[in-house]
Amino acid sequence: MAGVASPFNLDAAPVSGPAARGTEDALTTLVALVHHDLEACNRVIVARMDSPVALIPQLAAHLVAAGGKRLRPLLTLAAARLCDYPRQDGLCQDGATRHVDLAACVEFIHTATLLHDDVVDESRLRRGLASANAVFGNKASVLVGDFLFARAFQLMVDDGSLKVLAILSKAAATIAEGEVLQLATQNDLSTTEARYLDVVKGKTAALFAAACQVGAVVADRPEREEAALAEYGMKLGIAFQLVDDALDYVADQATLGKTVGDDFREGKITLPVLVAFLAGNEREKAFWQRTIETLDQQDSDLDQAMRLISEHGAIDATLGRAKRFATEARNALMIFSDCPIRQALADVADYTVQRIR
Amino acid sequence: MAGVASPFNLDAAPVSGPAARGTEDALTTLVALVHHDLEACNRVIVARMDSPVALIPQLAAHLVAAGGKRLRPLLTLAAARLCDYPRQDGLCQDGATRHVDLAACVEFIHTATLLHDDVVDESRLRRGLASANAVFGNKASVLVGDFLFARAFQLMVDDGSLKVLAILSKAAATIAEGEVLQLATQNDLSTTEARYLDVVKGKTAALFAAACQVGAVVADRPEREEAALAEYGMKLGIAFQLVDDALDYVADQATLGKTVGDDFREGKITLPVLVAFLAGNEREKAFWQRTIETLDQQDSDLDQAMRLISEHGAIDATLGRAKRFATEARNALMIFSDCPIRQALADVADYTVQRIR
Repeated sequence: MAGVASPFNLDAAPVSGPAARGTEDALTTLVALVHHDLEACNRVIVARMDSPVALIPQLAAHLVAAGGKRLRPLLTLAAARLCDYPRQDGLCQDGATRHVDLAACVEFIHTATLLHDDVVDESRLRRGLASANAVFGNKASVLVGDFLFARAFQLMVDDGSLKVLAILSKAAATIAEGEVLQLATQNDLSTTEARYLDVVKGKTAALFAAACQVGAVVADRPEREEAALAEYGMKLGIAFQLVDDALDYVADQATLGKTVGDDFREGKITLPVLVAFLAGNEREKAFWQRTIETLDQQDSDLDQAMRLISEHGAIDATLGRAKRFATEARNALMIFSDCPIRQALADVADYTVQRIR
Repeated sequence: MAGVASPFNLDAAPVSGPAARGTEDALTTLVALVHHDLEACNRVIVARMDSPVALIPQLAAHLVAAGGKRLRPLLTLAAARLCDYPRQDGLCQDGATRHVDLAACVEFIHTATLLHDDVVDESRLRRGLASANAVFGNKASVLVGDFLFARAFQLMVDDGSLKVLAILSKAAATIAEGEVLQLATQNDLSTTEARYLDVVKGKTAALFAAACQVGAVVADRPEREEAALAEYGMKLGIAFQLVDDALDYVADQATLGKTVGDDFREGKITLPVLVAFLAGNEREKAFWQRTIETLDQQDSDLDQAMRLISEHGAIDATLGRAKRFATEARNALMIFSDCPIRQALADVADYTVQRIR
C-alpha cells in the first residue's frame, strides 16, 4: 500500500546509479556542513507544526516522518553560514538561531504551496507515494496549507525583523502570481518562452531567492551580498525547475518518484513542449494542439510526445538553458571568499542540472 | 444567468421586510459614521488587488464590483474611531490612514479564507449567485486566495507594526485550525456543544476579534481597551455564526441568498442539529445518523430535518445562545464613553441576531 509522500521529500531526489554519484555528493556535502543547524531546523518544524487540533499534527507527522532533503531551508542555513552567522567570534547577540527559525519558516511556506499545488493539480503521487491530498482529501490539504502559511508568518513575527517579513511576504505573493500565471498559460501553445520563464521565476525561483537572501539579512551583511545571494537563489531555482520540467518527459516513474507525464496530461506548457511544438511540422503541431490544447489524449500519446521531444532535441535544449542558469548561479557566489560552504553551494548548482543524467 | 457572488458580499445580508428594518438601520448607521474611511478602504482594496497577472485583477474585479457590507473592515474602522484614531486634535503622526490599510488587510484575509472555504465545501452559490470557484474553477480560487493572503501580510509589513502582525498572523492560524476542526467534527454527531463552539470561535470569531483589536492598537490605547474590543469582536463573531447556522435551516433561498441546507447536505455539525439530535427519539436519532453521519440523503430529508429542528425548538435554542453572546458583546463596550460609534457597534450586536426575524 502506498504511504503518504512528504512535500519535504520531493526535492532534488537523487538519481540512483554511478552516473549520479558525484552530484548526489554535492548535496550530501552541503548537508554535512550545516547538519547541526538542519537538525535544529527539523526540531523547530516539528514543534511549530503542533496544534490542539489533532488532524494538523497527524497530517504533519506524515510529512515529517518521510524526511527529505529540505533544499530550501538548507539554502537559508548555508547562506547564513556563508555570511558568518552565527559569528565565529561568538559576538551574536540574538541566541544565534535566527537562521534556523527562518529556515523552518521557508519550509512551511514551501510545504503550504505544495499542499495547495497538489490539490490544484489533482496529483495522485509525490515521489512514488500517494500525495497528502489523495490520502487526507483536498479539504485537509487546503486548510493545513493555510495553517502552515499562517504559522510561517508567526515564526517571522517571533523573529521580529520587518525586513525578513517584507522579503518573505513578497515571495509568497510572487509564488501565488506565478501559479496563477501558470494556470493562464495552461493549454495555450502560443505561450512564449519569456512568459514560461515568468511562471518558473514566480512559482519556484522566487522562494529559492528569498530563502538565500534571508541568510544574508540575519547576518546583517551589506546590500551587495544580499543581492548576490538572492541572485544565486533565483538562478538556481530556475535551473531546478527547468530540469524538473525536462524530467517529466524522460524519467521513468521508479527513478523520478512521481507520475511521469503529469505535465502532459494536464496540458501544462513547459519548455520541452514549446521547443518541440515550434520545431514540429504541421502534423506534429496538430498532435500538440489536440493533446495539449484540447486535452484529447489517447493512451499512446505520452509515448509519442516523448518521442517528438527527443527527436527535436527539446530535452537537450531545456538542459542547455538550465546549465546556463546554473552557471550564473555559481558565478553570483564569486563575490564571497572561497570556503567549503561557497564550494558546496556552487556544486549544488551543478547538481540541479546533473541529476537528470 | 448567475453572476459571480462576492465574498465581500455575503455578510450580514439584511433580511428584507419591515421586521428587519430596525436592524438593517443599525448597520446603515455604522456605515454612515465611517463612510469616508470605508470608501478609502475600498480604494486600497482595489489598488492592492492589482497584479501584472491579469487573472488576479479579473477575479478581483468580480469580487469588488459586487460590493457588499464589509462587516470585518467596518469593525476595524469603527474600533479605531471609537479609540479616537485618527485623533480629533490632529496630532496623529502617521498620515492617519493605518486603520484604513489594516481594514483592507482584514478583508483580504477574510476573502482568502472564503475563497478556500468555497473550494473546500464545493459550494455553488454565494448570496444567490454563483461562487467564484463555480465560475473560475477551484484552481484559481485556491491560488487567488493564496495571493490575497500574502498581499494581506505585505500590507501589514508596510504598516510596520509587529504587534499588528502578531495579532493577525495568530488570527490567520486560528482560522485554519477552526476550519480543520470543523472538518474533523463533520459527520460526527458525538460532537459536543463545547467543541462546536471551538469551531465557531476559530473559523469565524477569531477574525472578528482581531479586526476590532487592531483598531485599538493603531490608536495606541491601553491594554484594557484592546482587550475589551477583542472581547466585543469575539462575542459578536460567535453570535453571528450561530445565527448563520440557524439560517441554514429556516430561510428560503431567495431570502438568505445562499443555498439553504448546505450544512445539512455536507453533514456539518451545527447547533440546530445537535439540539434536535439530542432531544430526538430513537427513530429521529436514526434519521440524523443516516443523513448526517453516512450522508445517505433523499430529496425529502431536508424538509424532515427542518421539521425536526423546528419541533424541538432548536432554532430558538440556537438564537437564545446567540442573543446571550450578543449581549456580552454589547457589554464589553461599556468601558468606553458613550458616543454614536459605541451606540452603533452595540446595535450591530443586536442586529446580528435580529436579522433572522
